[in-house]
Amino acid sequence: MQRRHFLKTASLSVAGAAAAPFVSSSRARADETYTWDMVTSWPKNFPALGTGANDFARRVEQLSNGRMTIRVHGAGELVPALEVFDAVAAGTAEMGHSASYYWRGKVAASQFFTAVPFGMTTTEMNAWLYYGDGQTLWDEIYAAHNLKPFAVGNTGPQMAGWFKKEINSLDDMQGLKLRLPGLAGEAMNGIGVSTVNMPGSEIFTSLQTGALDAADWVGPYNDLAFGLHQVADYYYTSVWNEPSAVLEGTINLDAWNALPEDLQAVVTEAARASNLAMYSEFAFRNAQALEALVNEHDVKLRTFPDDVMAALYQSSQDAIQRQVDDDEESRRVYESYAAFQKTVRPFSDVGEYAYLKSRDNVRD
Amino acid sequence: MQRRHFLKTASLSVAGAAAAPFVSSSRARADETYTWDMVTSWPKNFPALGTGANDFARRVEQLSNGRMTIRVHGAGELVPALEVFDAVAAGTAEMGHSASYYWRGKVAASQFFTAVPFGMTTTEMNAWLYYGDGQTLWDEIYAAHNLKPFAVGNTGPQMAGWFKKEINSLDDMQGLKLRLPGLAGEAMNGIGVSTVNMPGSEIFTSLQTGALDAADWVGPYNDLAFGLHQVADYYYTSVWNEPSAVLEGTINLDAWNALPEDLQAVVTEAARASNLAMYSEFAFRNAQALEALVNEHDVKLRTFPDDVMAALYQSSQDAIQRQVDDDEESRRVYESYAAFQKTVRPFSDVGEYAYLKSRDNVRD
Repeated sequence: MQRRHFLKTASLSVAGAAAAPFVSSSRARADETYTWDMVTSWPKNFPALGTGANDFARRVEQLSNGRMTIRVHGAGELVPALEVFDAVAAGTAEMGHSASYYWRGKVAASQFFTAVPFGMTTTEMNAWLYYGDGQTLWDEIYAAHNLKPFAVGNTGPQMAGWFKKEINSLDDMQGLKLRLPGLAGEAMNGIGVSTVNMPGSEIFTSLQTGALDAADWVGPYNDLAFGLHQVADYYYTSVWNEPSAVLEGTINLDAWNALPEDLQAVVTEAARASNLAMYSEFAFRNAQALEALVNEHDVKLRTFPDDVMAALYQSSQDAIQRQVDDDEESRRVYESYAAFQKTVRPFSDVGEYAYLKSRDNVRD
Repeated sequence: MQRRHFLKTASLSVAGAAAAPFVSSSRARADETYTWDMVTSWPKNFPALGTGANDFARRVEQLSNGRMTIRVHGAGELVPALEVFDAVAAGTAEMGHSASYYWRGKVAASQFFTAVPFGMTTTEMNAWLYYGDGQTLWDEIYAAHNLKPFAVGNTGPQMAGWFKKEINSLDDMQGLKLRLPGLAGEAMNGIGVSTVNMPGSEIFTSLQTGALDAADWVGPYNDLAFGLHQVADYYYTSVWNEPSAVLEGTINLDAWNALPEDLQAVVTEAARASNLAMYSEFAFRNAQALEALVNEHDVKLRTFPDDVMAALYQSSQDAIQRQVDDDEESRRVYESYAAFQKTVRPFSDVGEYAYLKSRDNVRD
């Protein structure tokens, strides 16, 4: 794919040339306009993920007062769902919205920027990105691929997925065909499950035809939208695989560097605002969808038995260790990630966790 | 106090007049500039709270490309810490940064927009503000006081506070003089404690002189900054009073209405970005400070015994009920708050809480 010349969409008005002395040099460019394409891994307008991409684009347009427009494309419209990384790196589109662990075959360390089994919660993850080394490491690693990454949303804790049969022991997991991406998929492979990745839109049919026995997608809101309760009865709670999942915005580095400083700030802060907005929306919509799944669709909520949890924990640690041993970039990122988790977890324990326990204890 | 004429700080440049036809009508005002004063309830540059106010101001300046400047003032510089609401309503300053429960004597319902004992977590609260009726109700109630409110930060879960003596039973609470604002203060009064509110900067001396036996301030980061560990040995975990605490930005409604639409968007999204940034910063800095308090300063971490927790829960419900019975505005807000909590909590339980439990169970 050929890189486009991004400035071709910019125009310079007479007003820009008339800039008065009190305006800064970047103010002098105040009438250059930018129109970007954003390719995504989600169906157009897909709940929270696709609409979250739309909301980000709307924020950029409002904050820039119309100087910057981002055209959002659903999966398959310009490029397939799982080709977002390559397309943005090559400049087919200026921006993408996806999840970094989809690129693990290409950039192994990318998975630490989405979700780590038994890893950090959403709040801990945001703290690492904004106040730890997370963003700096992510920038460094993606710069080698001509990309600038941002967190542009978070699903919050994801459910452990849909299973056609109830899981009563580790034996019941043997040989199951499960859709589960990233490190968690590796960990499942380590306990005898056979995992694959595929775009969310293919999960329903794969469960229906028996190509899959089980599937993780996101959580109640998105899973209900795909109708997964129609093809599997057992729904496992959020216990291990994705305590948080960052949605990534990727920006072609040439396009990023061509933006004036104030529009870089617009993109940066629109991303931060969208990060919170999506997480907040998921907290609400997941709750509404969970109620519908349990009370209207008779879904059976379950959690994994202790032997499965113990095996998954050990297998997760092993999968991480293998990756860290194999890949210097992964080692560097995980060292930072693990050290940060060790730092922040004690406050999560006496803060959020202590509160949730006491709210549970006094339940009427 | 007299209202100022906010547009006196605006200037119109020649570039604005030269606006080309393709720019929107609000673009035609692109060179009007706005300079606001923001009064706060915190010492200037106070960790996370004061610096969070600074960060919000910086975001507004960057996003507006210098068209809007907010001058941040510490408590007592223009007005005292607990006069922010009145000062902004009257137009002494265009904006304030504080906490809504400080105004309970004036607007009883305001406390539901900061923190509710045994109430919503930070994530649930943000969901109510952004996707439930929270912001709409807050807007309505504050509009009667000539104010437009925003969430501009959140402390996350707050600790239950500092006690000079260990609490081993409900009896030990009798007659204690405790600094604790809002509904939680009411609840403490209901179990035999005597609560007061005072600015954070006065807590250290009050504990030292014995005017206070105990004090809640925020959490490890802010409490360490005030040196509270030097005047009390026992530090109680985050179990009941402020599972989340919203920091409020208040804007004089005339000043708000005088902003062009794009700068209203700048303020709105800078507030949302700052909301997440402060919460993320607290997660990290609280953890660092907790480590220092426990390991360097030998602070004793404690949680309340069961009889105290049970009494606090009942007393909290009673305090809320009294307020709802007394005040129509409070009834309306709390009905929305309580219904939203009831909706979102089941997903918090199978999501965040289920994860924190399983991470705890597999602890190495």
